[in-house]
Amino acid sequence: MITTDILIIGAGPVGLFTVFEAGLLKLRCHLIDALPQPGGQCAEIYPKKPIYDIPAYPEVMAGDLIDNLMKQIEPFKPTFTLGESAVTIDETEDGQFIVTTDKGSQHKAPVVAIAGGLGVFTPRKPPIPNITEFEDKGIKYIVKDPEEFRDQKVVISGGGDTALDWTIYFAEELNCDVTMVHRSESFRAHLDSVQKVMNMAESGKLKLMVNSEVKALNGNGKLDEVVIKTKAGEVFNEKVDTWLPLFGLTPKLGPIADWGLEIEKGAIKVDNATDYRTNREGIYAIGDVNTYPGKLKLILCGFHEATIMVQSAFKRIHPNKNNVLKYTTVNGVHGFEE
Amino acid sequence: MITTDILIIGAGPVGLFTVFEAGLLKLRCHLIDALPQPGGQCAEIYPKKPIYDIPAYPEVMAGDLIDNLMKQIEPFKPTFTLGESAVTIDETEDGQFIVTTDKGSQHKAPVVAIAGGLGVFTPRKPPIPNITEFEDKGIKYIVKDPEEFRDQKVVISGGGDTALDWTIYFAEELNCDVTMVHRSESFRAHLDSVQKVMNMAESGKLKLMVNSEVKALNGNGKLDEVVIKTKAGEVFNEKVDTWLPLFGLTPKLGPIADWGLEIEKGAIKVDNATDYRTNREGIYAIGDVNTYPGKLKLILCGFHEATIMVQSAFKRIHPNKNNVLKYTTVNGVHGFEE
Repeated sequence: MITTDILIIGAGPVGLFTVFEAGLLKLRCHLIDALPQPGGQCAEIYPKKPIYDIPAYPEVMAGDLIDNLMKQIEPFKPTFTLGESAVTIDETEDGQFIVTTDKGSQHKAPVVAIAGGLGVFTPRKPPIPNITEFEDKGIKYIVKDPEEFRDQKVVISGGGDTALDWTIYFAEELNCDVTMVHRSESFRAHLDSVQKVMNMAESGKLKLMVNSEVKALNGNGKLDEVVIKTKAGEVFNEKVDTWLPLFGLTPKLGPIADWGLEIEKGAIKVDNATDYRTNREGIYAIGDVNTYPGKLKLILCGFHEATIMVQSAFKRIHPNKNNVLKYTTVNGVHGFEE
Repeated sequence: MITTDILIIGAGPVGLFTVFEAGLLKLRCHLIDALPQPGGQCAEIYPKKPIYDIPAYPEVMAGDLIDNLMKQIEPFKPTFTLGESAVTIDETEDGQFIVTTDKGSQHKAPVVAIAGGLGVFTPRKPPIPNITEFEDKGIKYIVKDPEEFRDQKVVISGGGDTALDWTIYFAEELNCDVTMVHRSESFRAHLDSVQKVMNMAESGKLKLMVNSEVKALNGNGKLDEVVIKTKAGEVFNEKVDTWLPLFGLTPKLGPIADWGLEIEKGAIKVDNATDYRTNREGIYAIGDVNTYPGKLKLILCGFHEATIMVQSAFKRIHPNKNNVLKYTTVNGVHGFEE
């Protein structure tokens, strides 16, 4: 059984930064994550995507953000259980928690911080019978490294921001021959992105097919052609290197939904007026996994929530000690020896 | 009269980042600061001091932090009134505010965000009659650029973290001959720093004089010698290049204290359960200037507060518009034209 001060469920950016703020208070952390590496979505889904709203980073690749966080927390020697999902939680008589994963490993701590992000992601797949046959053989639901699509003929399906953003990026930056296919005429996305795609279509920089859907797939071991049907009944066969059905990812809270926590619209309710505590004492939720009035699902907000939360965790772990907020300057950060 | 959407009082890191988050919502900002340049304390007091607790920056110089923030907000074309202090605030009939500075310039906006940091700083000076004679001529109250003291003979007075941190740094990094003078035997500082200074004193890397005070200053146009007196009555004359009396800086809220805002222990009370509003509708306080239960005076917390606050400002400015939270990725940030 692994024992620690704060057991963090989720090793995304917010979970990682929790290690730093806990370390400043001399609290140790262990992190559990279902993914095989730390970094959450940033590392798994979009490591090469730039982010522009991390304070004091005019631009940073999601993967680099994670690398920097890993370097920042290194002095505090976090330990990880990766590739395992937290499944059950039990409370011991002395007010500690034991979390058991799907592989049966057990972790004990007086404080549990759920930093589960948007949970487990499953792409929404269009209902085409042979779609699984071409997954990773011409079909991708997620763009991890855009460079692998450079110079390709690509069809992108979807009408949201992800589909629009990648359509613009593939046409402008990757020299792709892009066809965007959307089943309706209206988009659930930001107006300026919609406007930009329309302008690019008009000037011939990409092809836009509205009121259309990919209905069938052809190929022999590898996707070769998509069959696009319009509402008016026309049918087009289009040769492709890659088809990207970008209909979004369904987040799932998973087994944590059964931990006796108050849930609202798929997120864990916390008290933002105090310390991001859940309705169970000793269990906190920080980052995208939580909700409160005015909540914004931004990484920078999760950083703040983590920082406030560990102060409260300190009081739970050391009820009789005073903690003095220490500024980290000149002489740096004093890490753990082992 | 300058008009804008959000008038920001204070151009420190939190005030600057507010411009970014406001810009994403297409709100314009104007900033007022008493200092001659943006950056607040980071630029004025410790530009060369490293900070270790900005998320995803294992280490960053305060001055570089400001440079990065200035670059990040550049697309949103903030405007500045520098070298002027906000003095009075008046409310117009249509619910706008007019802020007048000490130089008489006027600024009008529907929303005012006070990001005044710890306010105006005045160093605490020891009561030595001729002290002003040597200010900037051998006496410094603030270490802006430590490099200017390299290889010097330096006396540092004080018993807090700033005095201890610089004592260690000057002895270890700047090859200084350092004498630390402290009037008592106990320190109001972190134990590990105290321990380190004591160890360094024992091994001869610096000189530590407790129960001692600098009582007189000698020199001709330039400080040449400090006179140190112990509690036991001994007197030592010590030649110096520089004396650093580091007794802290007294923060002052200044004229803002008279704006009809609820004040608690020198800080402005805000509602952290909603949007960091003060008791006056349309006036918010963010960053070190505010207080609420559990408040931590950290830059990263101010970034979060600014982000939540501008969402509320948007609703006040555009009561009938819906704002969709936009993630900044792939296609970057859309700035203002002019």
